Amino acid sequence: MQDNLSFFFEPSSVAVIGASANPDKLSYGILKNLSQYGYEGKIFPINPKSAEILGYPCYKSVNDVPEDVDLAVIILPAEMILDVLRACGAKGVKACIIISGGFKELGEEGKKREEQMEIAAHEMGIRIIGPNCVGNVNTYSGLNTTFIKGMPAKGGIAFVSQSGAVCGGVVDHILNEGIGFSHLISLGNEMDVTETDMIEYLANDPETKVIAAYVESIRDGGRFMRVASRVTRQKPIVLLKAGKSESGAKAVSSHTGSLAGSQTAYSTAFHQSGVIEVDSLRSLLQVAMAFDFQPLPENNQAVIFTNAGGPAALLSDGLDVHGFKLADLTEETQQQLKTGLNPAAQTMNPIDMLGGANEEEYAFALRVAIEKSDTGTLLPVLVPQALVHPVAVAEAFIRETEKSHRTVIACMVGKHSIDEAKLLLHQNRIPVVDFPEDIGKILSAMLDYRLYREQPSGQKEMQSGTKKKKAIEYFSRKDDKKFLGEAETRPLLDLYGIRTVAGMHTHNLLDTQAAAEKLGYPVVLKIVSNDILHKSDAGGIRLDIRDQMHLDSAYRSLLAEVKDKCPEAKLEGVLVEKMYLEGEEVIIGMKRDTNFGPMLMFGMGGIYVEAFHDVSFRIAPLDMDEIHRMIDETVAGKVLRGLRGTMYDVDAVASVIHALGQMAVDFTQIQEIEINPLKVLRSEKGAIALDARMILL
Amino acid sequence: MQDNLSFFFEPSSVAVIGASANPDKLSYGILKNLSQYGYEGKIFPINPKSAEILGYPCYKSVNDVPEDVDLAVIILPAEMILDVLRACGAKGVKACIIISGGFKELGEEGKKREEQMEIAAHEMGIRIIGPNCVGNVNTYSGLNTTFIKGMPAKGGIAFVSQSGAVCGGVVDHILNEGIGFSHLISLGNEMDVTETDMIEYLANDPETKVIAAYVESIRDGGRFMRVASRVTRQKPIVLLKAGKSESGAKAVSSHTGSLAGSQTAYSTAFHQSGVIEVDSLRSLLQVAMAFDFQPLPENNQAVIFTNAGGPAALLSDGLDVHGFKLADLTEETQQQLKTGLNPAAQTMNPIDMLGGANEEEYAFALRVAIEKSDTGTLLPVLVPQALVHPVAVAEAFIRETEKSHRTVIACMVGKHSIDEAKLLLHQNRIPVVDFPEDIGKILSAMLDYRLYREQPSGQKEMQSGTKKKKAIEYFSRKDDKKFLGEAETRPLLDLYGIRTVAGMHTHNLLDTQAAAEKLGYPVVLKIVSNDILHKSDAGGIRLDIRDQMHLDSAYRSLLAEVKDKCPEAKLEGVLVEKMYLEGEEVIIGMKRDTNFGPMLMFGMGGIYVEAFHDVSFRIAPLDMDEIHRMIDETVAGKVLRGLRGTMYDVDAVASVIHALGQMAVDFTQIQEIEINPLKVLRSEKGAIALDARMILL
Repeated sequence: MQDNLSFFFEPSSVAVIGASANPDKLSYGILKNLSQYGYEGKIFPINPKSAEILGYPCYKSVNDVPEDVDLAVIILPAEMILDVLRACGAKGVKACIIISGGFKELGEEGKKREEQMEIAAHEMGIRIIGPNCVGNVNTYSGLNTTFIKGMPAKGGIAFVSQSGAVCGGVVDHILNEGIGFSHLISLGNEMDVTETDMIEYLANDPETKVIAAYVESIRDGGRFMRVASRVTRQKPIVLLKAGKSESGAKAVSSHTGSLAGSQTAYSTAFHQSGVIEVDSLRSLLQVAMAFDFQPLPENNQAVIFTNAGGPAALLSDGLDVHGFKLADLTEETQQQLKTGLNPAAQTMNPIDMLGGANEEEYAFALRVAIEKSDTGTLLPVLVPQALVHPVAVAEAFIRETEKSHRTVIACMVGKHSIDEAKLLLHQNRIPVVDFPEDIGKILSAMLDYRLYREQPSGQKEMQSGTKKKKAIEYFSRKDDKKFLGEAETRPLLDLYGIRTVAGMHTHNLLDTQAAAEKLGYPVVLKIVSNDILHKSDAGGIRLDIRDQMHLDSAYRSLLAEVKDKCPEAKLEGVLVEKMYLEGEEVIIGMKRDTNFGPMLMFGMGGIYVEAFHDVSFRIAPLDMDEIHRMIDETVAGKVLRGLRGTMYDVDAVASVIHALGQMAVDFTQIQEIEINPLKVLRSEKGAIALDARMILL
Repeated sequence: MQDNLSFFFEPSSVAVIGASANPDKLSYGILKNLSQYGYEGKIFPINPKSAEILGYPCYKSVNDVPEDVDLAVIILPAEMILDVLRACGAKGVKACIIISGGFKELGEEGKKREEQMEIAAHEMGIRIIGPNCVGNVNTYSGLNTTFIKGMPAKGGIAFVSQSGAVCGGVVDHILNEGIGFSHLISLGNEMDVTETDMIEYLANDPETKVIAAYVESIRDGGRFMRVASRVTRQKPIVLLKAGKSESGAKAVSSHTGSLAGSQTAYSTAFHQSGVIEVDSLRSLLQVAMAFDFQPLPENNQAVIFTNAGGPAALLSDGLDVHGFKLADLTEETQQQLKTGLNPAAQTMNPIDMLGGANEEEYAFALRVAIEKSDTGTLLPVLVPQALVHPVAVAEAFIRETEKSHRTVIACMVGKHSIDEAKLLLHQNRIPVVDFPEDIGKILSAMLDYRLYREQPSGQKEMQSGTKKKKAIEYFSRKDDKKFLGEAETRPLLDLYGIRTVAGMHTHNLLDTQAAAEKLGYPVVLKIVSNDILHKSDAGGIRLDIRDQMHLDSAYRSLLAEVKDKCPEAKLEGVLVEKMYLEGEEVIIGMKRDTNFGPMLMFGMGGIYVEAFHDVSFRIAPLDMDEIHRMIDETVAGKVLRGLRGTMYDVDAVASVIHALGQMAVDFTQIQEIEINPLKVLRSEKGAIALDARMILL
C-alpha cells in the first residue's frame, strides 16, 4: 500500500474536482497554486459549469477526462463527496486529497459520512489524505494542491501537520526567509493516511533531511513507535504535540473530535523512539532548520565570536541551561587570536572583538578557531553597529565555515538591519536566530539526537517462553476478580523471578508468634483480606516489631483498627513478614495505555513523585539498556547509584522492571500492576517486593 | 543629586565634544541623531578642526561656546577625557555622557583612568553616564545622543541597559513595529550614574509606564532593593539579568571587568523587591510591551477566540504551563455565541469560529464575551487565511476591546501576511505575538505583578532592641574564633528566643548516664570539640539511644571513632540531648551576600536541596508575611502544612527564620549561621534547633 503514497507527491496528472472560476473561491486558489510553481504533470479542472479556468479546459466529471488521472483534489460540499469518490474509483484514480470539511470534526452525522467514505475508498483501493485539510506541497516536483499564499523554497524539511492552519502559519513565517521545505503535508482528519504513514514514506524521500511534525493525536501508538524507532535511525523527527495540558487537550478534542489519550504516554513514546519533542512552534521551526542545514555537534562545547558582550552573556546563559559549555581556548589559540584582533579584544571564550569588529576580524577569528581542534560548535554573534555591514559579515561567516564540518549557528540580534544578511545565511545553510537565548535549545536537541543515534538500537523483543507458559496456568485459575491484593499477586511475581519478602500467612496469635520466631525479628504484620486493597489506609499494617511482647500488642491493635475502619471487610488472617531495616524503597509500576501499550513507571513514590515529579516512564517491550537509562533519568536512580554514599543493587531493580514489562507483554489482561515498595538492598544483595497489587481487565 | 539627572534627558543645550565632520564616524552619527528627531534645545559641536557640521557652527572647546551648556556628549580618545571633563566643570556643564571606551573594561590602566575621572567629576558636581556607553534617547523631548540607526516611537517603556549593544539590538527589533519607548538609556561602566539611579528617576517620569532593564551586575544591592521595592509599588520593573550561569558570568565579567556576585542573591533580591525577572531578551520586550499597553489581568482565566484549532491548542498548553486556565463559558454565553457564528463553530472555550471566520464574526464573539462577566483575559488568535483580511480583523479587535477594561493580547501566527495588522494593533495598544506559546509567560508576569501589588507593603525594619543589647555581651566575650560549633552557637540562639534541644555537657560515662536518666530516653550523644565543625563526618554523633546498656556502648564507640578519625582534635566531653522521634527536619540558614546582605535559606536539606532544588531564599530585613511566602514556595513548606497528612508548627519555623534574620541585621560580623536540623513538631508544639554552627568575620 505504501507505494501508492507517491501519487500524492509525484502524480503524472491531477484533477481538481470542484475547481471554481471565481478568484474569491479557495478552489480557484488551489488551481492557481497548481499551475504556477513548475508542476509538469497534467492539470484537469472538473467543473460542470465552466469551459475553462486559468487556461485549462474544464470537464463535467472526472470520468470525462480523456486521460489517466493519478491524483484528485476534491473541494465540494461534504454530502457530494461520496459519489465523487466512487466516480474516481471508476476512473482509476490512485489517490485523493479531500480538502472539504463537514465530517468527523462536526460530530455524529459527519462521522457517519466519513465512515461511508472510508469504506468506499477502501473498496476501490484509493488512498485518501483528509478530509478537512489544506492539501500538500512538494517543492521538488512543483506540486502545490493548497490554497495557501506563497510557495516555500526548496529544502530538506518535510513538514507534516494535523492542523491545516498551522501549515498556513508556518508557510507565512518561513516565506522569503531562505528556509526550505521538501514537503508540506496537511493531514486533516486522517481518515486513511496518517502521520505515521507519512513519516514512513518520508524516511525514503531523498530530498527530506528532517521530518517536522505537528501532532494532536496518534491513533495507532504501537505502530507509530515501531515506525518512528526505525526512521529516527535514518533521519531526525522533530515533533510538537498540542493538547499536552488539560486545557490544550480540551481544545484539541473539541476541534478534531478525537481523544487525546495519556500525555505521559505520548512523551514517553516520543522519547523512547528517538523523536525529538519540542514545546513550541518556534522551536519546531528552529530545530528543524538546524537539522536540515548543519551537521550534528560533536560534543557540548561551543565557542562564541561576538562584537558585543551582552548578547554573548545571554547566549552563554542559554547554553548553560541546556548543558552546553564554553570551550576553553588554549593559551596558544588565544595568542594567535590576539595577532589579528583589536588589542583590547577578549580572546577568552566568548571571543569579544568589540563593537567595531568588521567582516575581516570575524573571518580571522573563525579561521583561527577552526584550525584549532579545541573549540566545538561555532556561534558567531553580530549586533548591528552603525559602521559594520551585516551582509559583509554574513559573507565572512559563510566563506570561513563552509569547509569546516563544524556545527555553525549564527545569532543576529535585531530585525530590520539584518534581514538581508539573515536571508543570505539561510540560503547558505547557516541557521540564524534573532535572539541569543534560542541557541541552547537548538543545540541540545541536536546533541540529544546524536547521542540517541550512537546508542546501539537494541533487541526490544521480550520473549519470556517458559515463564509465560507457567503463568498461563496462573491466569487460567483466576476467578473474575479484577482487583488483586498482595497475596494473590505474589505467585505471579514468583513465576517471573521477582523476589518477594519471606513471610507466612497465619490465622491466630499463636501461629503468628511461631511464624515471627521462624522468620526472625524484626517483622511486619499485614492484614489479609480480599476486600481491602489499600492496607495502610485501613490501618492494616504494623512495622518494625522487635520482640514477642511487641508482636502481641501489635497483632491485637491491628485487628481492632481494621475492624473499626472496615467493618464490612471479610478478614482472612495476617501476613507475617521479615522486616528489612536497611535499603532504599522505590516503586515500580505498569499501567496499560490504551494507545501505546504497557507503560512502565519507576520512582521513589510519595512526594518524590507527586511534588518533585521524580519519576520515569517507558513503554514495553524494551531492552536492559533502555531500562538502565530509565532508572538513571531520576534522582531515585542517582540515590540507588550512590548519591547519598551507599550503592544499592540497581541491576536487581532493572530486572524487576524488565520482568514487569515481560508480564505485561505476555498477558494483555493485566491493566495495572504495582510493586510498592520494592526494597532495594545494597549492591549485589538484590531487591525485594514488599507489597504488590494488580488490576486485571 | 537626583534632580541633576533631568539634564541627561531634558537639557536646554547639548555640546557634542569630539563631533566629526566625517559621516563615517560615530560622532557624526550622534550629531545627526541629535539634529533629526525634533530636539528643540541648542546643539554645539565641539571640534577644533571644522567650521561647521550639519549646519551647526563648531567650537574649538566647550569653553568657547557663548551660551550655557547643560549636557556634554563626549566621544574622544580615553586619555583626553580627563582634561575635557575639567573644562566642562569650568564651563558649568551639569551632566556628561561619555561614549568612549578605554576604561575599567580594559583592566588596570583603564581602571586608574576611570578613577581619576570619577574624582574630577565629583569635585565639579558633574553627573556622568558612561563611560563606554552608546548614549541615550528621550522620545518625548526628541533628544537622541546615540549613534544607533533609527528612533523608537513614543511610548511607555523606559529601557535601561548595561550593554550598549543590547540597546542597539532592541531598537532594531522594535523599529517600525509600533512598540514605543519613553527612554532608552545605555549606562556603560556606571562610573557615576547607575541602574538604580535611573530606576529612581524613571519612577517619577510621567511618560514611563514600565521600566525594562538589562542588567549584568548591581554594585549596591541594598540600595537597589530599597529603591526597587518603592518603585515597583508605582510601576512595574521588568528585568533581564545576564551572567546567571557560570559561563554567562564569565562572559559578563570578562567584558565589564566587574564581579557578578551570587546569582541566587540577585534573583532573591529581584523577587523580593517585586521586580519581574524574565529569562530572555524576547520576553523582556514582550512583557514590557504588555505592561505598557494593557491593564493587569484580574485573574488567571482567559478566553480564546480563534479561526483555527491547532494554534488555540498550543496557546492553551502555554497558558496551562503558566497557571492560566480557559474560563468556563456559561450555557447562556454559548447560546448567544451560536446566534452569530458559523453553525459548526465551537462555542466552548476556545471559541473556534473555523477557518472562514471574518472580522464580523471576531467582532461578534468579542462583543458577546465582553458583555458577559465570566471570561477574564481576551485572547484573539488569527491564522492568515486566503480569504480573510488581517487588517480588517485587527480593526475589529481594536474596535470591540477598546472600552472593555479587559486585558487583551492578540496572536497572529505568521510574519509576512500579518505585518500591517500587527503594526496597527500595536499602535492601538494591543500587544501581538507571532507564536501562540508566548502568551502564557506574558500573562503570568502580569498576574504575578498584580498579586505583588495587592500584598500589603509590610514593615520590613527589624528592631530587636533588648535582644541585641544582651547579645552585644555575647559577642564582646568572643575570642578570635571564626568557626563556632553547636555549644558555642547555642547561647546566641537562646538570646534570640530560638528553642534548642534540652541537653547536658558531660565529661565521663557516669555523668552521661545520669544526664540521660534526667533528660529521659531516648537520647542522642554528640562529641564536643572546638576542632570538629562537622560532627557527623567525624563519627561524633549517636542517635536513638533507648536505654542505659545502649548508652554505654554508644558512648565508648563514639569516643573510639572520633579519636580514630580526628586524632589531632582536642575532645571536651559529650553533649547528651533529648531525642525527638516525631517531627519533620528542616534546615534554616543565613549566609551574608557581599552585595545584597544577609540571605536567609529554608529547605529540607539533603537531596531535597541538592537534587530537587527545593529551597527558598530571602534577604533580611523582612517581615513575617514575607517569611511565610518564603516557606510556602517550597515542597518542604507544603509538607509542614500537611501534605503528608500531619500539620507541623509552621509559625515556629517562621519565628526561627525571623530571629536568624534579626541576628544577621544586628551583628554584621556573622557571616554564616545554620540550624541543621531544626526539628519541627506538630502544630503549636514548636520547633527545636538540634544542631547549629556559625561562621564569624
